[in-house]
Amino acid sequence: MLEQLGIRAKKAAQTLSCASRAQKDAALSAMADALTRRSGEILDANAQDIARGRESGMRDSLLDRLRLDEGRIAGMAQGVLDVAAAADPVGRVLWGETRPNGLQIRKISVPLGVIGVIFEARPNVTSDAASLCLKAGNAVILRGGKEAILSNTAIVRVMRDALQESGMDADCIQLVEDTSRESANAMMRMNGFIDVLIPRGGAGLIRAVVENATVPVIETGTGNCHVYIDASADPAMASDIVFNAKVSRPSVCNACESLLIHRSIADEMIVPICGRLHSAGVQIRGDETVCALFAQAVPATEEDYAREFLDYIISVKVVDSLQQAIDHIAQNGTGHSECIVTQDYNAAQTFLARVDAAAVYVNASTRFTDGGEFGFGAEIGISTQKLHARGPLGLANLTAEKYIILGSGQIR
Amino acid sequence: MLEQLGIRAKKAAQTLSCASRAQKDAALSAMADALTRRSGEILDANAQDIARGRESGMRDSLLDRLRLDEGRIAGMAQGVLDVAAAADPVGRVLWGETRPNGLQIRKISVPLGVIGVIFEARPNVTSDAASLCLKAGNAVILRGGKEAILSNTAIVRVMRDALQESGMDADCIQLVEDTSRESANAMMRMNGFIDVLIPRGGAGLIRAVVENATVPVIETGTGNCHVYIDASADPAMASDIVFNAKVSRPSVCNACESLLIHRSIADEMIVPICGRLHSAGVQIRGDETVCALFAQAVPATEEDYAREFLDYIISVKVVDSLQQAIDHIAQNGTGHSECIVTQDYNAAQTFLARVDAAAVYVNASTRFTDGGEFGFGAEIGISTQKLHARGPLGLANLTAEKYIILGSGQIR
Repeated sequence: MLEQLGIRAKKAAQTLSCASRAQKDAALSAMADALTRRSGEILDANAQDIARGRESGMRDSLLDRLRLDEGRIAGMAQGVLDVAAAADPVGRVLWGETRPNGLQIRKISVPLGVIGVIFEARPNVTSDAASLCLKAGNAVILRGGKEAILSNTAIVRVMRDALQESGMDADCIQLVEDTSRESANAMMRMNGFIDVLIPRGGAGLIRAVVENATVPVIETGTGNCHVYIDASADPAMASDIVFNAKVSRPSVCNACESLLIHRSIADEMIVPICGRLHSAGVQIRGDETVCALFAQAVPATEEDYAREFLDYIISVKVVDSLQQAIDHIAQNGTGHSECIVTQDYNAAQTFLARVDAAAVYVNASTRFTDGGEFGFGAEIGISTQKLHARGPLGLANLTAEKYIILGSGQIR
Repeated sequence: MLEQLGIRAKKAAQTLSCASRAQKDAALSAMADALTRRSGEILDANAQDIARGRESGMRDSLLDRLRLDEGRIAGMAQGVLDVAAAADPVGRVLWGETRPNGLQIRKISVPLGVIGVIFEARPNVTSDAASLCLKAGNAVILRGGKEAILSNTAIVRVMRDALQESGMDADCIQLVEDTSRESANAMMRMNGFIDVLIPRGGAGLIRAVVENATVPVIETGTGNCHVYIDASADPAMASDIVFNAKVSRPSVCNACESLLIHRSIADEMIVPICGRLHSAGVQIRGDETVCALFAQAVPATEEDYAREFLDYIISVKVVDSLQQAIDHIAQNGTGHSECIVTQDYNAAQTFLARVDAAAVYVNASTRFTDGGEFGFGAEIGISTQKLHARGPLGLANLTAEKYIILGSGQIR
């Protein structure tokens, strides 16, 4: 059954890879239009998912992620239109040279082929991922969570109909309707059918994919992000950055999970910063110094320093030096986003050079690690691996390279 | 034991990632010098490998690949010096922009970290891979075949001594001395220690790595490369390209393994081209038409069309159309190098657009898919996967990206 999806996706990808931007944009417009026009049937399906979720005792925060309304569907449609408005990432000449023997070599961007996306909960990922993959000339096989299966099925049906009406192969977008763990595992081993697998979800999903996949994977998402306040930091700037990075949206991967403070300024900074966080409802899990200075702090365990809370919780540790901060991040970080707050040129340079992460900040909130904020437009996730692409995965990262070589009979 | 190597490699990589080009080049020069100066001990070790290989009945062609002499060691040393002469792939600004909020975002090239290389037979890969990894700021863990273990051990010892003498951490280059299958399998799962695994070897090794690795892999090498002679091809050019692509070096991955000929010119071209190949000792495995026209041809099986012979053998098939050639390549190719010989603009454009491979040629031999021929300098292999990099993997492909973001207190 999955193999049938694979065969159809491969066939669709072959045609799609040669589609013009005009064709792809017309299809995306039709998809956006259909999402709005047929919102009724999507909302009906979603209401059933919500009812089932409530019966099975799903938490309110998860129910909220699952819930669609006219506004959210309008947002999904606008997202698809934004992708249509973006430049075509396919067919760019990335490099070119004429060799001494006259061979004209060009490296061009081409679609990856078939992309598998395994994701959880939020049904808007369905239209986001499908439109990004389509614009980059890739067929996509989507596999969402069982909680959202009826919503996802409806969204994919609407998008496939729109594809067909605009003269494209509907199999450019397919959904795996079997939401068992077996179907996810089988998808991870569809070599020959899926060129790249992108998991979008929690640490458990990412780990399962890394463990089991034989298909090449782009690892996304887990962010144990640190803010390190250096001895020379401006206190007000440090407080604002920590507060923004932790509190503006605690549930996302670029939120700050751990705060490191240089010992020389611990006395001065811990109480006001922890107090401000605590007033906003953040639990402080601190080391001995932090707990001694800030009464409402609770002791942090070693695991706390390695955890992505995605919640109103922060771990706080006092370090003796910049190097100790860098070592702590190397030990506990997930290679997502790391920040130093400092007025010291050498400290900034050292931190930038030695911290190994997708995004390393001086004096700015980690919350900026985002396709939109970087100017790339919509993203399919934040890559925390080193191969292929790191950081926000925009349209350009959903392509591969190909060398084309124009000769006139050259032999070697 | 492997984990100890991993811990040491990670530590070495941290320092190496910040080494200047001058430091790395000095170390490479010292390595080249040491290889020449201490060739005696390398040759002694190699002589023992050769003796053991001969006792165990190793084929002459393999013995030849294993054998070192003063000339080959001088070649290895020169290879290391060539890498020293190449530009530093680390620290390039790949992209940069100042955002409306004043954030200065730059994408820079950084080392991958720790690279694992699993390879077979030829001991010169040891110095090639080590020098490329070092120049790109990566620690390397090498795991060669058991046939060359004494040679590899001697080469690595010499290189490590040179590293230490030039003030670098010797653990930038480490060899896995256990050549059991278990050690290879364990290396494939060293997540957290090895950032990227590059297998260099035959189809069996590549398959084992793809099947078993949980560490990100760059797949290299297998090349079932086609030359398609279009209806409009210049006969002399076609003959020269096929002959060169097949015969100039049949044992390498960019050699032609399969010839496709348009039916309209089959009568005219098959006899002279197959005759020329056959005179050079190439066995022709053909379809019905080929066997009917060329008496010395033997019938090809379906498997023959999917095989990388790496030998004086070629499969030959007559196709009815350009599209049939493209479909045959999609079915049987390995995404390495594919060539069309044609004088027809539209046929060339269609072939370039529709054939999905690392390198697609018009009117030139597939043998040009090579780091040196593309102007990239030495390579660590030819990538046939779509993620990260495709085609010759030069120094630039042994790096990752990192975003650095310079702010002045921005919050979101």
